[in-house]
Amino acid sequence: MDETRYRRGLDTVRKIDAENAGRLEEALKDIAPDLYRYIIEFAFGDVISRPGLDLRTREIATVSALTALGHAQPQLRVHLGAALNAGCTRAEIVEVLMQMAVYAGIPAALNALYLAKEVFAERDGRGLT
Amino acid sequence: MDETRYRRGLDTVRKIDAENAGRLEEALKDIAPDLYRYIIEFAFGDVISRPGLDLRTREIATVSALTALGHAQPQLRVHLGAALNAGCTRAEIVEVLMQMAVYAGIPAALNALYLAKEVFAERDGRGLT
Amino acid sequence: MDETRYRRGLDTVRKIDAENAGRLEEALKDIAPDLYRYIIEFAFGDVISRPGLDLRTREIATVSALTALGHAQPQLRVHLGAALNAGCTRAEIVEVLMQMAVYAGIPAALNALYLAKEVFAERDGRGLT
Amino acid sequence: MDETRYRRGLDTVRKIDAENAGRLEEALKDIAPDLYRYIIEFAFGDVISRPGLDLRTREIATVSALTALGHAQPQLRVHLGAALNAGCTRAEIVEVLMQMAVYAGIPAALNALYLAKEVFAERDGRGLT
Amino acid sequence: MDETRYRRGLDTVRKIDAENAGRLEEALKDIAPDLYRYIIEFAFGDVISRPGLDLRTREIATVSALTALGHAQPQLRVHLGAALNAGCTRAEIVEVLMQMAVYAGIPAALNALYLAKEVFAERDGRGLT
Amino acid sequence: MDETRYRRGLDTVRKIDAENAGRLEEALKDIAPDLYRYIIEFAFGDVISRPGLDLRTREIATVSALTALGHAQPQLRVHLGAALNAGCTRAEIVEVLMQMAVYAGIPAALNALYLAKEVFAERDGRGLT
Repeated sequence: MDETRYRRGLDTVRKIDAENAGRLEEALKDIAPDLYRYIIEFAFGDVISRPGLDLRTREIATVSALTALGHAQPQLRVHLGAALNAGCTRAEIVEVLMQMAVYAGIPAALNALYLAKEVFAERDGRGLT
Repeated sequence: MDETRYRRGLDTVRKIDAENAGRLEEALKDIAPDLYRYIIEFAFGDVISRPGLDLRTREIATVSALTALGHAQPQLRVHLGAALNAGCTRAEIVEVLMQMAVYAGIPAALNALYLAKEVFAERDGRGLT
Repeated sequence: MDETRYRRGLDTVRKIDAENAGRLEEALKDIAPDLYRYIIEFAFGDVISRPGLDLRTREIATVSALTALGHAQPQLRVHLGAALNAGCTRAEIVEVLMQMAVYAGIPAALNALYLAKEVFAERDGRGLT
Repeated sequence: MDETRYRRGLDTVRKIDAENAGRLEEALKDIAPDLYRYIIEFAFGDVISRPGLDLRTREIATVSALTALGHAQPQLRVHLGAALNAGCTRAEIVEVLMQMAVYAGIPAALNALYLAKEVFAERDGRGLT
Repeated sequence: MDETRYRRGLDTVRKIDAENAGRLEEALKDIAPDLYRYIIEFAFGDVISRPGLDLRTREIATVSALTALGHAQPQLRVHLGAALNAGCTRAEIVEVLMQMAVYAGIPAALNALYLAKEVFAERDGRGLT
Repeated sequence: MDETRYRRGLDTVRKIDAENAGRLEEALKDIAPDLYRYIIEFAFGDVISRPGLDLRTREIATVSALTALGHAQPQLRVHLGAALNAGCTRAEIVEVLMQMAVYAGIPAALNALYLAKEVFAERDGRGLT
């Protein structure tokens, strides 16, 4: 049963972010391996895998929330890449981040755009869209 | 010129939220009428009217950000309605709000869902989707 | 399996907050019943039921976090009661809330204390500690 | 000694907000009377009474911070009145709140302006500036 | 018309922060040049240029808000310098930051003061007040 | 009198965090020495020294609040160490941080756990629990 949730979560995470899922497992394995499991089972297996919304739209929602929160820069970096992997264009992501200036203030939008520049440059270096 | 921005903003706001734009003008006219103008010109005329992203996706981004912020309940209420007017289904909005539990915590998701219940019920009473 | 998580979660929630768990189910049943299930399975069944920390300490952590967040007043109200049910004294809760003035600012502490006053008064009326 | 801090704090609070200081004492006396004392001694006696900045400027700083935080509406209401008592004009306060749209987002500014409308109207009814 | 707003914004930004305006333009030119334009036109041309409040007071409001938000450290760094350029003394800025301990908590005040130390030291090295 | 508060605060801070208290004094001595004094007198002397709650429980409350706030990473680092010094086990701290995923979102919990890994590793190098 949990096996099902874990596999479904891993399938979903691999569609958008296989590399970072591996890094997350590595980062948590000595300190909180169960949290890694919950993230795969609950966040990805239960919630993000739900059929009611496509992964591209889900990543737009996540990028917006993390930009507005302002204190989750490592996760925003990961999800900027995941949004691209899920089918967002760079231009669409920039539109979303600019729009956050209206709702969360210009500093929150700027800090997200600075991260996006780094993510885009890093992907350029690896030949990714 | 500013005339252009104001009209473009008003056109956009009327597509998704004519009624609340009127309420906002009324609420601000005695205390900060220029802020009303800036909201139409800058938020709606400059940013939300940009062609790079459709209004439905823009409202998903806004609803996500306001849910994550947690302290903007009156604006979240308005944008839950605007999201529906822009073409989101109720089920899609519920998916977005549930997903916020992962990134902003379960309380932020619950408070947004309680608002959504009120918005949906109020629209039921008016025969709106 | 999930049956196990759900039952474990329900057992835990009933120890500290049976009444509010019922209200939560009722509140979510028409709009997001799966979120109710995730809260019981993940929040209570996976996390809060873990043996590494007693329920009283867990509620102190939750009350502290919700006070610091500042935008989760309905959930803070619930957890002020849950903390008492889990074995905290009123005086201990007041100590925790006062301490939040140091880390999250005096307004956050005051707003939590005003809620605590209401929770304590409501429990007085029902003959609860 | 502490006597000195308490009196200095009370002198300062009475210059800008005698009425609300009384309400705060009343609100805390049964639940956390020591916090009331700390607020007078530390917040008003130690910090706000310092000679390096006039009370009008201090209230502008406080109103800005509370508007940006977004979750301290009861305290923002009190400090909108205190800012007026300390010599700010209504027009200056509106300028500060509008400016917050730039840094904390338009919703935070709007919610503060709605509170300011209530504070101004209530003071009109009492013949205050 | 927009020409007017852009020039007015640039005039204002040059009074307090010419160097960082140049850096901002550079940082955004490849990723979101329109956001740079909106910041000059809306933030500086529409809002910060308004005659109702002097630039020194506006910077005190901004520094207070960014300190309270806590997640806008790069922008706080810029505005600590802008506040000095607009006529605040270092001692006044320190008073504002210390006061934030009362409203946003001691950690927010400390992190802003650590930034201020860096800004002051960097300006010492350049012979600025 | 204040002498009493200062000594009581210093006694308390030395029980849990002598080294960082020294660093804090050093960091603030040139820019805001009075804030250092207020932190010892008010935060540690008035609040944290109160007899109503043991230091271990107080540190759990602080670690929870700082994790939820998300923008106080330097202070969270200090208090992760202070929590260990006050008698929390590493396993208990990890439980508290994992629980924060429920209330403040998974990113806030992850960022706190990454800090905890660093604190634990640094203490390993110094032979501390």
